[in-house]
Amino acid sequence: MQEKLQKETMERKKTIRDYETVALSEDGKAVVILDQTKLPGTIEQLRLETAEQIREAIYLLKVRGAPAIGVAAALGAYVLAKQSRAVKYDDFAGEFARNKEFLNSARPTAVNLSWALNRMESVVKNNADKSVEEIQELLRREALGIREEDIRVCRAIGEYGLSLVKPHDGILTHCNAGRLATIRYGTATAPIYLGQEKGYAFRVFADETRPLLQGARLTACELHSAGVDVTLICDNMSGAVMRNGWVDAVFVGCDRVAANGDTANKIGTSVVAAVAKQYQVPFYVCAPTSTIDMDTPDGDGIRIEQRPEDEVTQMWYRERMAPEGIRVYNPAFDVTDHTLISGIVTEYGVARPPYSSSLRKICRAGKQI
Amino acid sequence: MQEKLQKETMERKKTIRDYETVALSEDGKAVVILDQTKLPGTIEQLRLETAEQIREAIYLLKVRGAPAIGVAAALGAYVLAKQSRAVKYDDFAGEFARNKEFLNSARPTAVNLSWALNRMESVVKNNADKSVEEIQELLRREALGIREEDIRVCRAIGEYGLSLVKPHDGILTHCNAGRLATIRYGTATAPIYLGQEKGYAFRVFADETRPLLQGARLTACELHSAGVDVTLICDNMSGAVMRNGWVDAVFVGCDRVAANGDTANKIGTSVVAAVAKQYQVPFYVCAPTSTIDMDTPDGDGIRIEQRPEDEVTQMWYRERMAPEGIRVYNPAFDVTDHTLISGIVTEYGVARPPYSSSLRKICRAGKQI
Repeated sequence: MQEKLQKETMERKKTIRDYETVALSEDGKAVVILDQTKLPGTIEQLRLETAEQIREAIYLLKVRGAPAIGVAAALGAYVLAKQSRAVKYDDFAGEFARNKEFLNSARPTAVNLSWALNRMESVVKNNADKSVEEIQELLRREALGIREEDIRVCRAIGEYGLSLVKPHDGILTHCNAGRLATIRYGTATAPIYLGQEKGYAFRVFADETRPLLQGARLTACELHSAGVDVTLICDNMSGAVMRNGWVDAVFVGCDRVAANGDTANKIGTSVVAAVAKQYQVPFYVCAPTSTIDMDTPDGDGIRIEQRPEDEVTQMWYRERMAPEGIRVYNPAFDVTDHTLISGIVTEYGVARPPYSSSLRKICRAGKQI
Repeated sequence: MQEKLQKETMERKKTIRDYETVALSEDGKAVVILDQTKLPGTIEQLRLETAEQIREAIYLLKVRGAPAIGVAAALGAYVLAKQSRAVKYDDFAGEFARNKEFLNSARPTAVNLSWALNRMESVVKNNADKSVEEIQELLRREALGIREEDIRVCRAIGEYGLSLVKPHDGILTHCNAGRLATIRYGTATAPIYLGQEKGYAFRVFADETRPLLQGARLTACELHSAGVDVTLICDNMSGAVMRNGWVDAVFVGCDRVAANGDTANKIGTSVVAAVAKQYQVPFYVCAPTSTIDMDTPDGDGIRIEQRPEDEVTQMWYRERMAPEGIRVYNPAFDVTDHTLISGIVTEYGVARPPYSSSLRKICRAGKQI
């Protein structure tokens, strides 16, 4: 009997849950990622060793989601630093700075990318008295530390988020702020996964999230494979499901939170927020403090990445779905006004309006821990 | 020189503007439609002669848009009545009633379908003293009359709509309430086409309108081919364009307006309305009085058609874009609360809140004309 059980286990088809979103390879010479552009059809791991490969993987969204981008960049910065043949500190530090700038240019909106790279650079700057080999080892520890932190942070966000909902609630989420956007748990999905551990029976609605379909391809995929009750809807159906009374709370992730609470997140987030307000559904942003940018006063200061037109007119399709020559506007993110946000869930607690003071307090608390 | 010009004209590639949305064939024996499921890639006309062909064309959205569905059903009812071999009135009327029920079952939400079929049936009922041949001729006139009326009604809606905007305004529209949803002008697009005739330079934003992409495939297509400045966006980008200050008014069509002003229209319309409210952009519903259903007190009484799951997960795509076995919710329409609507533009004028009295007045005025 035991033998048969074991065999069944062995034969179980592997799902995305068996793969890490972002990890350091066993030989420590590469960043290993799950290629998210191939999901849900194909599970494919990529081994990234050069600066070009790492930057391209971020630019092409093979790895995406603000926290995962931060971890990939940190591990990437270590992998590149480890390849250095520099002997003198200044050569090593100069090389590090060039790689950092190159990786940092991959995507402009998520603050985690520069946040993680700045943390790595601090290691280099604060250890000018040490040997290159010693600094390389410190960089390895810092990168792996950032990765481990992400797991702890997401779990804490999940616990605070879970306190905001009840066992049979309907939850709507937009884009993918899930396990595939982080290392484990996700941010917006963390309350869902932690609720599942406690036997909560949530009913989750996943916006498909045009044009790149991260909701259909990634969120629906990871929640479904985890056994969560998830229903896929088009982005324009949030009004219908809320009017039906099926949604008790919205949880979304974020790419950057400004000091006043204005939040940049995947395009369409501000639309869900306006609809939630109309139907008096609480709207929560799940934000590791690494995504809170106290140097940006409000949403107008957040640069919004514009993406290619063919993502809207052609990508995924058998044939072109819009007339030739048509003008397309394709911003990757939008800004949700802080007045539409019921709470910002961080690893140190839930910030409530007015955010200008609550976020400051939470960031200060974080620094003291 | 004249010869060359003529040749160029002859050689000009035909566009959708050269085809009627719905018409009676020249021999009077068929309904001829432009197959809208093939656009924008292929321009294909279909000749519908049997009840099954006509019903299927409506069910499969080969002809769609509340007014166009009404005209197709009216012409279809005539074509089928003309095929009748009945000699006695009762046989003819019974046959007519069965065909009417069959066509009426094609789609449940748009009221125009039953409105047009009821008008046709009234001709049969009110002329029981006439010969079958005479009634057939009266049905032909009634069907063609409904078609001609649509053109006049849309033009009047365009004129009233145009009075609500200024020459350089930004206009956002959802789905296709355009020429392709009517015979000419459209409803939501009528102010745009009439403005164009007067030299207005609107900047139009067309929501792509998932899952069937009527915005990308039809609205963007017809406006672009008419030389209108149109930008295609995903449904979740309305928040971004309104936050940019690019939209001065929203015009949408409708499938059914309840007596209190609650409006059923393409899924996502209520989402645009909530976003418009957030950014204080006026939101107008363009509604021929044939879509106003005074017998339905409010939106809760409107039956919403549910469509197949694969429209969301698979249709149009090279490969499936969601995990196997995922649950999908795919309502074809949603209800926009009357409190979100700034005005309902009919062929007899613009109804303003409170709609329970203004719509009653407008419908009464219509009956008097």
